[in-house]
Amino acid sequence: MTTEETKKSEEHSIFIGGKPFMNYVTGVVIQFNKGANEVTVKARGKFISKGVDVAEVSRRKFLEDKNVSVKNVSIGSEEFENKEGKLVNVSVLEIVLKSN
Amino acid sequence: MTTEETKKSEEHSIFIGGKPFMNYVTGVVIQFNKGANEVTVKARGKFISKGVDVAEVSRRKFLEDKNVSVKNVSIGSEEFENKEGKLVNVSVLEIVLKSN
Repeated sequence: MTTEETKKSEEHSIFIGGKPFMNYVTGVVIQFNKGANEVTVKARGKFISKGVDVAEVSRRKFLEDKNVSVKNVSIGSEEFENKEGKLVNVSVLEIVLKSN
Repeated sequence: MTTEETKKSEEHSIFIGGKPFMNYVTGVVIQFNKGANEVTVKARGKFISKGVDVAEVSRRKFLEDKNVSVKNVSIGSEEFENKEGKLVNVSVLEIVLKSN
């Protein structure tokens, strides 16, 4: 990927964390309103449930006019070092939303 | 579906709830060890993160010999009546694991 392509794909990803729920929904909606064809919702560990909620609420309540569907959902595991320096696994989820 | 088919598909589903994590992992592993080709992990709302963890831990730590892969992941929403009698939406997740 070129730098420009990397930047574009990052711009169209929403990483779910500890901020208020509606921040992320707004993030998804803004991407589509700015003309993105696809937006990816990414979440890890305990934020995965919130990620599914963000994708569903964005799609069903705020993007009805854009007819946004779930293009793909994938799960996996990532290894990372915790505070104690131990390698642990965390589950990851990616939801690709697509404007039709 | 015949009664027998319904029974079979239910037997091969694991519904994630508030029981200890390893109960569900054991449930998935037992299904495969009994000869199931596919096992579906189903979760709603706050249990979705746990569902992804159950699928990933079962697959990666306990079913290495069976070479189990993620066949499909789907998300959606279900309407249900809460304690106050109000209709609310809850996100749902289904992960189909397949023995290769």
